[in-house]
Amino acid sequence: MGVSLKQFAEMQARVSGRCPPGRAKAGNDGSVAMVASTVSGAVLLGLDPSLRGTGFGVVRVARQGCTWMAHGVVRCDRGWKRSRCLAKIHEEISSAIRAHHPTVCVVEGLYFAQNHQTTLIMGEARGASLAAAACAGLEIFEIAPRRLKQAIVGYGAAGKPAVARMVQRMLALAEPPESDAADALALALVFAQEQRRHGLAPPKNL
Amino acid sequence: MGVSLKQFAEMQARVSGRCPPGRAKAGNDGSVAMVASTVSGAVLLGLDPSLRGTGFGVVRVARQGCTWMAHGVVRCDRGWKRSRCLAKIHEEISSAIRAHHPTVCVVEGLYFAQNHQTTLIMGEARGASLAAAACAGLEIFEIAPRRLKQAIVGYGAAGKPAVARMVQRMLALAEPPESDAADALALALVFAQEQRRHGLAPPKNL
Repeated sequence: MGVSLKQFAEMQARVSGRCPPGRAKAGNDGSVAMVASTVSGAVLLGLDPSLRGTGFGVVRVARQGCTWMAHGVVRCDRGWKRSRCLAKIHEEISSAIRAHHPTVCVVEGLYFAQNHQTTLIMGEARGASLAAAACAGLEIFEIAPRRLKQAIVGYGAAGKPAVARMVQRMLALAEPPESDAADALALALVFAQEQRRHGLAPPKNL
Repeated sequence: MGVSLKQFAEMQARVSGRCPPGRAKAGNDGSVAMVASTVSGAVLLGLDPSLRGTGFGVVRVARQGCTWMAHGVVRCDRGWKRSRCLAKIHEEISSAIRAHHPTVCVVEGLYFAQNHQTTLIMGEARGASLAAAACAGLEIFEIAPRRLKQAIVGYGAAGKPAVARMVQRMLALAEPPESDAADALALALVFAQEQRRHGLAPPKNL
């Protein structure tokens, strides 16, 4: 299932905060201009950390929305030791930062529905990747998963394919990104828009 | 309260695995030689990560036990953002590794008695410090807190001051180290001894 022009316009209106969900007003051509909130030209790194598949996405803020720069998933084989995964995560995120010079990192918040061992391992993956961002001087913000989905798809319990399709559309990508990378790109896109919203809580500064 | 010669001899016997707890045989001078298990000259980094006070300790394995090289605590003020703490932890542990060239890192395992938020934050601190060790090529092992205390003090629920006094004694330090650093030094000391014990589970390789 693709994303209709109307859905896309509604999403843009939602994240720009100009009208409440369900009341988006599209232009004559069905589009709603995305006005970048952060300084035009700024580069944002979205990060969705996990031990076996840390997603990252880099976008540049432009006057007419955001433009895609890079995305990927740091894959760590199930047979690898945790320490090897943490090293790879740290090195690949550091490498992406050196390549694209982002100044802001937006990370996905965590559900706490799983067990403590899972939370600890997720925490380690977050620590390895956030340390890369923090050591490079990036400012770090956090957006909760439900809030991200609400902003990008209009439904807090939306599935990963819906997020990926919306990200594909917003960044004019040839195909939907892998789901971990799509979440990372979505974090950067939503952050860019939320910066200019008024009357809503800003993303949490970690 | 200090550590008596008898207690010290018993501890050395316990960690060397040569006789069961309570049946340590001290030499005429009350001492029991510690025989290093890892290659003599090897340098071990003990690590006790937490967001506000990550303890580290570095020892060199010698024929007659271990010798002290360095210890310290990475302090992060309560008012600091998490990202600033993670950067400092990563940088200071990386700096200690560059200064002393350890080849093995021994980290404290975690209790899971606290809430998910605490576990996540602990995990982030572990991830930031373990990434420093893993990126530098160190092999990483884990020892559970109860097992550490059992080995070093002879009592799994021993308090931090008892661990610190035993570490002071074993490394001939002028005074007991701060408790976080003492735990880190204890991890390295116990690891060095456990490597030559037979019939017991080896430390968990992370």
